[in-house]
Amino acid sequence: MREIEQSSSGSSLSELNETILATRSGPEPAEFGALREQYPKSTFTWYPISGAYVASPQLDELYKKATILLTLDIVPLPAQVPLLKLVQLSSAGYDHILGEQLFKDLDINFATASGVHGPQITEHVFMTLLSLNHHFPLLLSWQRSHNSWHESRLPPMQDLVSQRIGILGYGSIGRQVGRVAQGFGMCIHAYTASARHTADSKRDTGYIVPGTGDPDGVFPNKWFSGTSRAELHEFLGSGLDVLVVALPLTAQTRNLLSTAEFEILSLPRPKTGEGAIVVNISRGAIIDHDALLVALKKEKGGLRGASLDVTEPEPLPEESELWDLENVVLTPHISGNSTSYAERVVGILALNLERIRTGGRFEGFPVNASV
Amino acid sequence: MREIEQSSSGSSLSELNETILATRSGPEPAEFGALREQYPKSTFTWYPISGAYVASPQLDELYKKATILLTLDIVPLPAQVPLLKLVQLSSAGYDHILGEQLFKDLDINFATASGVHGPQITEHVFMTLLSLNHHFPLLLSWQRSHNSWHESRLPPMQDLVSQRIGILGYGSIGRQVGRVAQGFGMCIHAYTASARHTADSKRDTGYIVPGTGDPDGVFPNKWFSGTSRAELHEFLGSGLDVLVVALPLTAQTRNLLSTAEFEILSLPRPKTGEGAIVVNISRGAIIDHDALLVALKKEKGGLRGASLDVTEPEPLPEESELWDLENVVLTPHISGNSTSYAERVVGILALNLERIRTGGRFEGFPVNASV
Repeated sequence: MREIEQSSSGSSLSELNETILATRSGPEPAEFGALREQYPKSTFTWYPISGAYVASPQLDELYKKATILLTLDIVPLPAQVPLLKLVQLSSAGYDHILGEQLFKDLDINFATASGVHGPQITEHVFMTLLSLNHHFPLLLSWQRSHNSWHESRLPPMQDLVSQRIGILGYGSIGRQVGRVAQGFGMCIHAYTASARHTADSKRDTGYIVPGTGDPDGVFPNKWFSGTSRAELHEFLGSGLDVLVVALPLTAQTRNLLSTAEFEILSLPRPKTGEGAIVVNISRGAIIDHDALLVALKKEKGGLRGASLDVTEPEPLPEESELWDLENVVLTPHISGNSTSYAERVVGILALNLERIRTGGRFEGFPVNASV
Repeated sequence: MREIEQSSSGSSLSELNETILATRSGPEPAEFGALREQYPKSTFTWYPISGAYVASPQLDELYKKATILLTLDIVPLPAQVPLLKLVQLSSAGYDHILGEQLFKDLDINFATASGVHGPQITEHVFMTLLSLNHHFPLLLSWQRSHNSWHESRLPPMQDLVSQRIGILGYGSIGRQVGRVAQGFGMCIHAYTASARHTADSKRDTGYIVPGTGDPDGVFPNKWFSGTSRAELHEFLGSGLDVLVVALPLTAQTRNLLSTAEFEILSLPRPKTGEGAIVVNISRGAIIDHDALLVALKKEKGGLRGASLDVTEPEPLPEESELWDLENVVLTPHISGNSTSYAERVVGILALNLERIRTGGRFEGFPVNASV
């Protein structure tokens, strides 16, 4: 493995001698410029690029010199980047670059941008959850007809106080959902594959957007764990009014939620007398959509509703019955969007540069090497 | 003043010897039944009534015996309630009963239900604020056309992290807004008429829905105060991305926000480059709606948007231009609705019964007497 050494020669604590190249769409964020000032011995180049790689002498020249590359999905061949030591991905996942030769090259470290999605996805979760609870589409239709005050009465509105929210996957996104749920006065049930009985094991060791998340894992009122069906069912059966799916898609989580799981989630809740609302902001394939549709269509004894930012397949076919169900909010995989995305990715890059300088461990690192 | 004495004769701590009558719409909440069991020496009657008072021998008989009355707006004449000591209103305000003879009778104490609205109104605030930021009406229209994934790109989405929210009136509603804003990672500027420099003065001394609010006043990053125009302008000029109006309507707050104030709020913000979003969930007459419309209609240099659950007048006239502005969400004064409303009002009644029993001070008390 190519060595990532502490590049400070000892003369100054702020020395970092790297050649950093960013190939990203959009303009250079201010935070990237700030790094340039912070590390005057390093070179920082923001090379705007979008879509696929297009051969260009300028880019090839930059690749040749780069020791650190920031990119979303444009990954050069190993021969193009002879000096490269670290690829900082701007995505939280890395399934899209598994096939790249560079990724298979164990000399190159890859770091993900896990942690940048928590705030905006959490806002999407609560916007759509509140919309289902407060009949927001109906209220908007009243506004469109200039008739809000003259309409028949609104159906009853449930507020979130003391409702139970189950967070399936208490990672960086799940923790920010937990933080806001706590603000609304909800009761929080977390679920992770591994048990978290100690204060140490409850900590979030990844990148956290400042002022957000649950760094010490203190918000859950109850913390479930396991990888068996029985353990999952115990969690799902803990009286959840809302279930937020915040797991990565793996062989183990594919179709994790199907008929049996939706039956458990459809049991009437003490506070609402109805089944749970299911919110999925991770990957559609975690849910069996045929089973979901059945549970959502039941007149009685089904799910209360669903908010789906992801489906299986995507796009959702035009003829799917999910589109028109009144208890469903469907959005096209946009919950991770944020104007702050680039600045947060650069924030992770900055942490990793600091760790290179001081010889520490990378954030979101490594995804391809066993170090 | 008719004396409200500690009714326990000393034989048991749970003795309370009162005749409690509730004249309310809707069925008796479970919490009311629980009081009956808690205080077996007292009499509890839930008399379902809605709309105006209708003379009835049954109700007149109940009035005659009642020492404590729970009601929204049906207030008997003093002669009808010879034993009455306390009226527990189920509204936070009491402007609607100012003209009642009973209210002018200084022998009768009135307690408000201030504190029951925080959770549901805060949910409405964030649902509509997030909707404006995340282009939710557009997303819903894509869903209606089964076309979400094929539409042109969504406009940029701002998340709330590090945005500044100004809370004009840091009472029970404002504090719950502050709690949730803190969860979303916002920077909080509070405003109150009186200065709150000490830990003691920052405390919320009213009823708080358990698990919500800001009991110790710890969430504001900056706390402004005053009653002068200059002090208000200093607060409004503190770089607010969002302004939530959570003040009561009084002679001092009528038309408080007009042309000059919207000009300050329209200055471009560091994070968004645009003016503020104004959210009003208190009373429409606090805002000069002509000035608001001008500030919302500006192509450039105006307000970013508005969420109005209240207007002046109400209903908003059908020809108002506010209905059709894309940066406006309009709802018909429903943000206080909640299926938990009755149980929370009974929660305040329970606190006041406990205070009668122990000789303590009432919650939301007194609004008509100087004690």
